[in-house]
Amino acid sequence: MSIITVVGAGMMGSAMSFPARDNGHEVRLVGIHNRENIESIRRNGYHPTLKRTLPEGVKAYHLDQLEEAMKDADLILCGVSSFGMEWFEENIVPIVPEGIPVLSITKGLEKDAAGNLTPFPEAIMRRAAERGQKICFNAVGGPVTSYELADRQQTHICFCGEDAEILKKLKSMFSTSYYHISLTTDVAGLETAVAMKNAYALGVSLAVGINNLEYGKDGMQHYNPQAALFEQGVREAGRIISYMGGKQETAMFFAGDLYVTIFGGRTRLLGTLLGEGKTFAEAKEMLSGITLESVAIATRVAEAVRQMEKMGRLKCADFPLLMHVDDLISHGAKLAIPWEQFETFIA
Amino acid sequence: MSIITVVGAGMMGSAMSFPARDNGHEVRLVGIHNRENIESIRRNGYHPTLKRTLPEGVKAYHLDQLEEAMKDADLILCGVSSFGMEWFEENIVPIVPEGIPVLSITKGLEKDAAGNLTPFPEAIMRRAAERGQKICFNAVGGPVTSYELADRQQTHICFCGEDAEILKKLKSMFSTSYYHISLTTDVAGLETAVAMKNAYALGVSLAVGINNLEYGKDGMQHYNPQAALFEQGVREAGRIISYMGGKQETAMFFAGDLYVTIFGGRTRLLGTLLGEGKTFAEAKEMLSGITLESVAIATRVAEAVRQMEKMGRLKCADFPLLMHVDDLISHGAKLAIPWEQFETFIA
Repeated sequence: MSIITVVGAGMMGSAMSFPARDNGHEVRLVGIHNRENIESIRRNGYHPTLKRTLPEGVKAYHLDQLEEAMKDADLILCGVSSFGMEWFEENIVPIVPEGIPVLSITKGLEKDAAGNLTPFPEAIMRRAAERGQKICFNAVGGPVTSYELADRQQTHICFCGEDAEILKKLKSMFSTSYYHISLTTDVAGLETAVAMKNAYALGVSLAVGINNLEYGKDGMQHYNPQAALFEQGVREAGRIISYMGGKQETAMFFAGDLYVTIFGGRTRLLGTLLGEGKTFAEAKEMLSGITLESVAIATRVAEAVRQMEKMGRLKCADFPLLMHVDDLISHGAKLAIPWEQFETFIA
Repeated sequence: MSIITVVGAGMMGSAMSFPARDNGHEVRLVGIHNRENIESIRRNGYHPTLKRTLPEGVKAYHLDQLEEAMKDADLILCGVSSFGMEWFEENIVPIVPEGIPVLSITKGLEKDAAGNLTPFPEAIMRRAAERGQKICFNAVGGPVTSYELADRQQTHICFCGEDAEILKKLKSMFSTSYYHISLTTDVAGLETAVAMKNAYALGVSLAVGINNLEYGKDGMQHYNPQAALFEQGVREAGRIISYMGGKQETAMFFAGDLYVTIFGGRTRLLGTLLGEGKTFAEAKEMLSGITLESVAIATRVAEAVRQMEKMGRLKCADFPLLMHVDDLISHGAKLAIPWEQFETFIA
């Protein structure tokens, strides 16, 4: 039995308590800013945003009890959203004891001023090393929605990290009959794959909105356009993953992740509204309060591609869907999916 | 303006009359065994199985008028189902004049007694050459359902063939503002990709049936299991495509094709029934009358993999989902998705 401290009691961090408790581990959930979630879990185990009762025995802490929650922990699980990563790096990473691994459910790519992209785990480990701290930062990628994990639905994800032995240990902590774990040391491949899923899920959802306009919300569904966008997403993400040094086999987690994000994620709402012809400003107002990670990552990677084009390292023309998604959300463009730019010749 | 003769007036062959007529070509549809379809089209243009009125000016012929229908044709479009390919090869291929290309909407792989797989176009051209006939046999792959093409929904597919110049000509014949055409000379890659889609769409649909059992048909949908199966399908198909000498870039058409087949295809019905715990015999009876191409191809490729394993060229363990699908349909196995076999280590 191990002690797992989850920093960030959001939906996914909390859902990880299901496989963890099913394996008999002690789970300590630390809320960062949402005191309500923690109070509710303490009262009767119910998680208000996940809308599920957590497994018996999950312990809930407020942030001011962090020290107590981290005492003797065997694993720190980073459960913040991608917007909370900076906070996590500043406040939690420095106090992780040497030899204690971190497993992050947050995914993302950082961009520097020159346009270079770096996966979160790599960036965080590099900066820690510069400070003289050695940290083993691993991450979860692959298709999973939190509430379905809490429903113990069959799920297959992947843990990535630099050390295969530690990855195996992490796998043994979380493996259950419903939570299936692949492993990879291809951190760039997996993290790039999962980082891109929201941007392209938005892209595919545009077709849902277009169909709503033409046939009505309860009208006949069409899948040719969604499939064309899906495939284009897989193609473009594959190019970015290659550029980031990732492997094609790891890139396949992107396809599953895109699939689940289209159907289970919040990004679909935004894509659908844009597909119905709303401007991004209008859509954002209609969705106020919903975290839209898709927006941040699409813009960041599109900007990086534009910068890389100037240096001759990437071509914007290879990413027509990403460019249009970014035009929609960053530059107030009107919807005009560049279908004909998807056409290619493969010799 | 060209003359396009479509042999086989089924749903997809007939749907091709939409981009063809929109480009002003003469379209001649030849029915093979369904006289009703042809009579109806002659009466008022309505296609009873496609459930759409065909574009103005489409000419419909019975098989005994084949000679008239093929006279001066610039292109023969093969519109038979994969079960009709043998008939097409025997009866139509030999009378295609030299220099007139064939474009086939039928996809498939042939297996010989030794377990070698060959894409239809390659096999047909080879046998024609053995008879001393030179034929240019091209094929359509990628995500498209016939009724959505007839609804002029945005669609992106790929034509494959050996001659890039002829492919460009074919593209110019069918390109419209909604029918977008990529081209490839990677025939093995595209044909293998599209041949495998039904088998894996069946695999993904198993999760729909399992969910029906657990939550009821109108109950909460779950996508983690579907996504895990989707990804596994992409992974396994990628391996078969590589084995067949196809390129990874062409393989991406598989992802889009799998997506549209899951949602728009008949295979979903079979997969859902098997997922609900019906035996294949029971499911087949319930679906009597529906063409189940998925069954034929899954069995054929699974058998080929087993034969190839004996020769040390492929491993069954690399195709756990395909093997289980085949166990279900060919060997009356009980449903038991091998989730844990999907777990992998990518170094």
